[in-house]
Amino acid sequence: MHTYLDCIPCFLRQTVDVISTVTDDPLLHEQAVRQALRATAELDFQATTPAAMGQRIHRMIRELSENPDPYRLIKDRSNRIAMTLLPELNRWVSDSPEPFSTALRLALAGNVIDFGVDHYTDVSEQAIRKNLREAMHANISPEAIQSLRSKSLQSRTILYLCDNAGEIVFDRLLIEQLGPEKIIAAVRGGPIINDATLEDARQTGLDKIVPVISNGSDAPGTILEQCSDPFCRAFHKADLVIAKGQGNFESLSSVQTRIFYLLKAKCPVVARHIGCTIGQYMILDGDKNNRHVEPQGNAARKEVYDA
Amino acid sequence: MHTYLDCIPCFLRQTVDVISTVTDDPLLHEQAVRQALRATAELDFQATTPAAMGQRIHRMIRELSENPDPYRLIKDRSNRIAMTLLPELNRWVSDSPEPFSTALRLALAGNVIDFGVDHYTDVSEQAIRKNLREAMHANISPEAIQSLRSKSLQSRTILYLCDNAGEIVFDRLLIEQLGPEKIIAAVRGGPIINDATLEDARQTGLDKIVPVISNGSDAPGTILEQCSDPFCRAFHKADLVIAKGQGNFESLSSVQTRIFYLLKAKCPVVARHIGCTIGQYMILDGDKNNRHVEPQGNAARKEVYDA
Repeated sequence: MHTYLDCIPCFLRQTVDVISTVTDDPLLHEQAVRQALRATAELDFQATTPAAMGQRIHRMIRELSENPDPYRLIKDRSNRIAMTLLPELNRWVSDSPEPFSTALRLALAGNVIDFGVDHYTDVSEQAIRKNLREAMHANISPEAIQSLRSKSLQSRTILYLCDNAGEIVFDRLLIEQLGPEKIIAAVRGGPIINDATLEDARQTGLDKIVPVISNGSDAPGTILEQCSDPFCRAFHKADLVIAKGQGNFESLSSVQTRIFYLLKAKCPVVARHIGCTIGQYMILDGDKNNRHVEPQGNAARKEVYDA
Repeated sequence: MHTYLDCIPCFLRQTVDVISTVTDDPLLHEQAVRQALRATAELDFQATTPAAMGQRIHRMIRELSENPDPYRLIKDRSNRIAMTLLPELNRWVSDSPEPFSTALRLALAGNVIDFGVDHYTDVSEQAIRKNLREAMHANISPEAIQSLRSKSLQSRTILYLCDNAGEIVFDRLLIEQLGPEKIIAAVRGGPIINDATLEDARQTGLDKIVPVISNGSDAPGTILEQCSDPFCRAFHKADLVIAKGQGNFESLSSVQTRIFYLLKAKCPVVARHIGCTIGQYMILDGDKNNRHVEPQGNAARKEVYDA
């Protein structure tokens, strides 16, 4: 997915929000905004995904603020809260007449813990619980769930691309339903927004269930050219890739391969690109989508499963 | 009022919204956004008001789109709808036990017809009526109204700085209460957003009630250095200046003179600068404010009359 015109004000909005949070120094605020303006002015909108631009902005903010991981406390907190919910959610799944569907809904619900789209995301237990309940009743088409299930049953190896800290606890539920024995999970190669890294996999015990690898990149998505060789091998060898979140969708949606995207459409540009409304939970079959994507990607007719 | 960090994403948001409306050409869209990014990157935030930056952006869009007055149809429509309401509103004032206060509320309500803050402002008769009703019941302090009234009674000459097309119809009601014989009204010197120009004064008959002068500038506010000599003479000679809208406030709030600002606080930055909430109708005594304004202007304790 390329950068749309509507992404430009949002890049600046993110820069202002994040730099104001990580430092009180007005000189650094101004410097960050000017750097973001200059970088955006020179951007090749068609060749750059919003995730790649996010990476540049957050790298610049980490450098200016001399803070290598500004979201570490938020990530710790998200993991902790999600872990306290885990035993209860395990029961939701085991007591459900459709455990796969329930686990999938909970994994989708976890995608709301995202500071890339909304810098002021509420990650209180109360807010997360509200979201989990909503996801349990969201209108997700049974065909979409069934399609993902069949593909996963047919696959001997699945690469599961995680998105955010906290969220990966809910991913555990789905991974257990998919069959941990055939799954490798991948996290970001370095701190970027509140995206999950190896540290988060460790904190939440994901690494006890499946092998967890770093993708070798600090993009808030999966930019294959930046990823490590071991990650790329796993990516190309897997029978099925399951990619969580907008960042993975933005950076991989033009890649022709067997990817299922699971995400909550949180920004108007992504929602318009997909053809859904903001807030919808989406299960997208990358194979089906890519056959229909137009060069501009915008009003492209896509076979999407909408929630 | 200087440019705040939060104004930056908004400049880009405005650029994207306006250029997408005035032309379908994606090359012009991209060109406008890049020009706005470059201009903003070089901006002196402390020395530039948001109104001055708005002027630059809209000049650039008029040039790129080769459309000297992109809002002409919107201005015509706003004037027409407001004029159809005028006889009824005249009765509201004449039937009111407090005609000055009623006319003032209606003039304040008219300030909602502003495409500078929200490019998708609803100027249907229904939306305007809703706003007029709200303004009639808004909590505006009687002291603020009384203070403006006394000042105007003591003044032999009043310069009334208009803001937007459509809105100037509602200004007529207040001007009639203030005493047209001592008033000169001023409008913008050239097309800028939906701000009123001499054409709008003519369309709405304002020029039949009071002398209407152009300020000689196409800024969406009053940047004195850009204004014509006749306007500046009128400005400095007047016993009282009444300035409508955010643009006039942004560009004049650092000027030490007898100005009363009448506006609806429509953007979060202006609301924070003033110390009110978004959507509040404000009557601000410039003299009182300026004594308290801090260099940064932000958390300055100001004696404001809040609505």
